[in-house]
Amino acid sequence: MSQGLAALKSQQACEILKELDVDCWLVWVRETMQMRDPSLELVLGTDVIAQTALLFTREGERIAVAQEHDAAGFPSGLFDRTIPYRTGIAEPLRRELSRLDPAQIALNYSVDNDAADGLSVGMLELLRQILDRTGYPNRFVSAGPLVERLRGRKLPEEVDRIRTAVSITERIFADLRVFLRVGQTEQEIAEYVRARMHELNVSPSWDPSYCPAVDAGPDKEFGHAGPTGLRTRAGQLLHFDFGVKADGFCADLQRMFFFGRRSEIPAEVQRAFDTVRGAIDAASAFLRPGRTGHEVDAVARAHITAAGYEEYAHGLGHQIGRFAHDGGMRLAPTWELFGRRPFGVVEQGNVFTIEPNAGTSSYGRVSLEEDVLVTPDGCRFLSTPQRELICLE
Amino acid sequence: MSQGLAALKSQQACEILKELDVDCWLVWVRETMQMRDPSLELVLGTDVIAQTALLFTREGERIAVAQEHDAAGFPSGLFDRTIPYRTGIAEPLRRELSRLDPAQIALNYSVDNDAADGLSVGMLELLRQILDRTGYPNRFVSAGPLVERLRGRKLPEEVDRIRTAVSITERIFADLRVFLRVGQTEQEIAEYVRARMHELNVSPSWDPSYCPAVDAGPDKEFGHAGPTGLRTRAGQLLHFDFGVKADGFCADLQRMFFFGRRSEIPAEVQRAFDTVRGAIDAASAFLRPGRTGHEVDAVARAHITAAGYEEYAHGLGHQIGRFAHDGGMRLAPTWELFGRRPFGVVEQGNVFTIEPNAGTSSYGRVSLEEDVLVTPDGCRFLSTPQRELICLE
Repeated sequence: MSQGLAALKSQQACEILKELDVDCWLVWVRETMQMRDPSLELVLGTDVIAQTALLFTREGERIAVAQEHDAAGFPSGLFDRTIPYRTGIAEPLRRELSRLDPAQIALNYSVDNDAADGLSVGMLELLRQILDRTGYPNRFVSAGPLVERLRGRKLPEEVDRIRTAVSITERIFADLRVFLRVGQTEQEIAEYVRARMHELNVSPSWDPSYCPAVDAGPDKEFGHAGPTGLRTRAGQLLHFDFGVKADGFCADLQRMFFFGRRSEIPAEVQRAFDTVRGAIDAASAFLRPGRTGHEVDAVARAHITAAGYEEYAHGLGHQIGRFAHDGGMRLAPTWELFGRRPFGVVEQGNVFTIEPNAGTSSYGRVSLEEDVLVTPDGCRFLSTPQRELICLE
Repeated sequence: MSQGLAALKSQQACEILKELDVDCWLVWVRETMQMRDPSLELVLGTDVIAQTALLFTREGERIAVAQEHDAAGFPSGLFDRTIPYRTGIAEPLRRELSRLDPAQIALNYSVDNDAADGLSVGMLELLRQILDRTGYPNRFVSAGPLVERLRGRKLPEEVDRIRTAVSITERIFADLRVFLRVGQTEQEIAEYVRARMHELNVSPSWDPSYCPAVDAGPDKEFGHAGPTGLRTRAGQLLHFDFGVKADGFCADLQRMFFFGRRSEIPAEVQRAFDTVRGAIDAASAFLRPGRTGHEVDAVARAHITAAGYEEYAHGLGHQIGRFAHDGGMRLAPTWELFGRRPFGVVEQGNVFTIEPNAGTSSYGRVSLEEDVLVTPDGCRFLSTPQRELICLE
């Protein structure tokens, strides 16, 4: 994890505090090997064991109150002041808050934005106990809007790393063109992908049990079921949902292969492919700063249903970054499941997936996924969009 | 992650509910790639994306309410009933709770036990919203005592996996005997350890920036500072704090090397070594079911201070398991930092580290760490205890 990037992100956090008119952000964590507040990686980049308070102010001050063993591992220069303690954090933390006396203390809780919801119930209670008989618990506010912007507005350094992850993922797809044969099982194919990740020293972007997801032929339900003993067959499709994490950042792509000549592609498969491709084109043409998430989703969804297909049973896309699902607003319909996230507004520097699909009657589902960066007046593909089925004769 | 082990641990959870006289345990999670409730790995073993409710009852019933894409990836046979939803969990969750109508609903929050504190503030609020106008929020209780026992009481299958992780860690220490030379930097040595982990297909037990911790000579402060450019020197010590995670379980060991012949070991180094060794022997002889954590810590601490050394600035030991610091009670003094954890009681099947240290005036610190399993009437070493300095001539 890069200390340089953590310094840049914590500067960015202070600027967003100013923009939001909030005095102070408190990242309040412990034993982060067991459970890591998603914000920690952004602004520190190392784990801590004992109770740790990271304070960021609208004036740009960055302060850490940490147990001495943890503090010894902090990157130098990341904090203006590091206050080490040995046996208890209560007294130094109270002292530091008194000095700052912030009118608002933003904490990482949010009903809707999972990436801004890193504070545990027990840690909030512990903080209340520590600050008992001070007025500070009345000044707690949600850090949701701060974290949404901080994660969502990718710095050029972050976009570069996502681009690298996308390019390594695409390299493995290129290798697969050579490796793939009729008669291989999904498990064999996944094993090859895992070996390539190991050789290239990258890890899967999500749970290794379904990264890569490998779906051979019409009988496999797409989703989080891992690779099975199903085999690739002539005249049938092969689907991948896969991305690598490189240098801390994730890619997330879906690609479709066809076992046969281009002339042998069944008409209903080609029509589904063209429809999905068209939905991605329509959504990416519409995507730009100021759009709300559900508006963008609706453009692709309408394209799919207008062609006579059933609508896809998930959102059109999510942000990517340090996680394959990087928190905050989504390109998704206003289902209960998504809470307030589809009402979020697209900003410059956001990186999204776009991943609609369409079903066929005899060949399973056709599903593609691209990664795009939002620019001042539109969006740019970070992946090389799949424009036709990859035919393997 | 093993489905078999998740099934065994969820059976164990139901038995502990009965023992604690609690009707139901609810593991309530979302987007676990971003932040994973530490309990999830025990009873499911895969990540989920959408809101998911895992319910375990004292009658032994295991129920999952999950979004259909997540549910498709659940190991078969793990749940008696899996209730999939597409757009919203509120209605199926309310229905399932009405059917069970539990008198207590244990949730993963705890001020003191970090491993039992996997519920986020936003998720608790969301659950309250979903259960608004039902009586269920009044039935919430802390799952702290349940999770403490579930994590702490290792099944034979879990002990076997820890033993494997310990043995691979010891193998890498054996390789180091051959690799180590005077004049190597800490960074070079850490690089070798990382390459061995890669070859053996295991990962570091904790943050890779200080796993291994490599400390050459008297000038390096032990702790979470990573390997530096400091070099090994003749007549000086080399210290490691290191463990691998294999098949989901962690080892955590400290070992000391000396560059020179056995006859050249300075007297104050040998005396510190013997004192630390003696403290481990005393603590392990004392450790047995029924002891409280701070009692065990005190035995080792007294051994160190009675020999004239300053007391070590941390706890004597912690549990290991799926994490290098596996939650729950600790062998530690009653410092504010440790909350209620030192008051916890040792149980059969617990696995602890024992890791005291003692300082020298000219050679830095001598620190050893062993891993032990609590038996019905004492404890057994899972590691082969270091009984003398490893001399490299």
